[in-house]
Amino acid sequence: MSQHKVIYDTDPGVDDAMALVFQARHPEIELLGLTSVFGNATIQTTTRNARFLAGRFAPGVPVAQGAAAPLKRIAPDPLAWIHGDNGLGNIALDMSDAATLDERPAHRFIIDTVRAHPGEVTLVAVGPLTNLALALADDPQIATLVKQVVIMGGAFGTDGVLGNVTPAAEANILGDPDAADLVFGAAWPVAIVGLDVTQRTIMSRDYLASLRERGGAAGQFVWDVSRHYEAFHEESAQLAGIYVHDSSAVAYVLAPHLYTTRSGPVRVLTEGIAVGQTIQKPVTMPVPAPDWDSRPACKVCVDVDVGGMLALYEKTILGTL
Amino acid sequence: MSQHKVIYDTDPGVDDAMALVFQARHPEIELLGLTSVFGNATIQTTTRNARFLAGRFAPGVPVAQGAAAPLKRIAPDPLAWIHGDNGLGNIALDMSDAATLDERPAHRFIIDTVRAHPGEVTLVAVGPLTNLALALADDPQIATLVKQVVIMGGAFGTDGVLGNVTPAAEANILGDPDAADLVFGAAWPVAIVGLDVTQRTIMSRDYLASLRERGGAAGQFVWDVSRHYEAFHEESAQLAGIYVHDSSAVAYVLAPHLYTTRSGPVRVLTEGIAVGQTIQKPVTMPVPAPDWDSRPACKVCVDVDVGGMLALYEKTILGTL
Repeated sequence: MSQHKVIYDTDPGVDDAMALVFQARHPEIELLGLTSVFGNATIQTTTRNARFLAGRFAPGVPVAQGAAAPLKRIAPDPLAWIHGDNGLGNIALDMSDAATLDERPAHRFIIDTVRAHPGEVTLVAVGPLTNLALALADDPQIATLVKQVVIMGGAFGTDGVLGNVTPAAEANILGDPDAADLVFGAAWPVAIVGLDVTQRTIMSRDYLASLRERGGAAGQFVWDVSRHYEAFHEESAQLAGIYVHDSSAVAYVLAPHLYTTRSGPVRVLTEGIAVGQTIQKPVTMPVPAPDWDSRPACKVCVDVDVGGMLALYEKTILGTL
Repeated sequence: MSQHKVIYDTDPGVDDAMALVFQARHPEIELLGLTSVFGNATIQTTTRNARFLAGRFAPGVPVAQGAAAPLKRIAPDPLAWIHGDNGLGNIALDMSDAATLDERPAHRFIIDTVRAHPGEVTLVAVGPLTNLALALADDPQIATLVKQVVIMGGAFGTDGVLGNVTPAAEANILGDPDAADLVFGAAWPVAIVGLDVTQRTIMSRDYLASLRERGGAAGQFVWDVSRHYEAFHEESAQLAGIYVHDSSAVAYVLAPHLYTTRSGPVRVLTEGIAVGQTIQKPVTMPVPAPDWDSRPACKVCVDVDVGGMLALYEKTILGTL
């Protein structure tokens, strides 16, 4: 049984919460900390939510507050129509057991934790990549000390779309395109779990109802937290269920064999009408491309074993692994 | 039997030549003229090749010379390693029957011909879109007088790539991205046949050999003209055959039911590292996108009945329709 020491960089967010429960309940993941970032809601809200989630599902795991805004832009508006006014589908939040806040900023927490466990830490980043970019800027050497970086973000078109918040951009990458371009260009192993696979992975209402029936408190929570989110999906995409974004990054850490990846450098457009778009040059592409060729290859997920992913999540919530 | 009056805007080019033979031999296509454009080779070479092709396969069809360079850039280098030094796979060209040159520039020929047949002309454009943009600039009203515009160009990622000459751009669109953005934004019905379908449509060596054996002079020509091109495909893409780019646009005109299309405005990136990329906002996408929303919808081909397309081409060359 392999063991993954994980820092979870997150902007909870409904699917962030579902992915936190997934990590907290899986025996092969050891959560070293949560780092919050703006994104689905303001940094105040996402940090509060991270403290709630850690306290409830991962007691003793520290939370460090991260960036309130992108590197070079103003913070986007909260996505309240997707994640609810409180960022967690408007469920009641009992903060009595909430995690206390680490005194370090998120990027410093990342640096210290990576340096305390050289070669062992997996960064699972499911929001704008500002904290990771700040950590790289502050201590570039951590790139060589991290085990891997697994990112939920971006889109490469194989599922028919290049974005979900614009025709060209996915929300996390658009949240801080400059940070994303830095993160994809650093010398650490990066795997990108984007819309190509997360929009093919759908938890139906029946699937979620089954988790509620059979999954105890965790299953009930996953159901409760996803009601508002499911209504959004039904309204916007005529989908009787929800896309599995952030939990797909966790599944990639646990079971990379469920994903088909393509290797090659990735750039992020940082200006123009397609700002936030992710573009890979596959290593198999023969033409020279100077804006890509000097950068390290990232692994981009282009296909997924949907049944395998959904079974892994279910067994983890149900405790039947 | 429907009849299509076609102006073929072309930069021959090996696959341009194969698509010309396709049009010349199909009984439902009436070629009103060929207009040349820079692209696969210089304008001098593509015009010479257009005259050769018209004279040999479509006697009496006029050729008008078009743009030597993009609207706002310098002309790209000829793609001699793909199409041969003479643009036609280095086969010998007997110019004794070559078409004479119309005295008008291509964009004027387009305008006059469209106005002479209001509502009837299909523009099949398989090179950089400079001539079409110049025609629009000179006489914007032709947009409402054209039956349809069918373009080979661009890529939308559903086949795994966004381009073939850069990680983001297909050759024809990169040839003149400013022109392409104007053409996709005009009020004429546009269908885009891009790499998403043309790279799924492959003529194998056996298929081409069969055309040579059974297709008379036309089949022999298709074989001869594609030798250099096939060698390029084998070397660059390890493909025992050739991608069917330009002939796919012709197939779309004749048999649109072979193609699955997606509707929505298309923009072309005209600057930055992804210059030349085509990005569609599908009409089903619910978010606002001001850079797309004011423009007319184009049809983008996202899937193809490969067997149906190859059978159509074969029957046309063999005369067994």
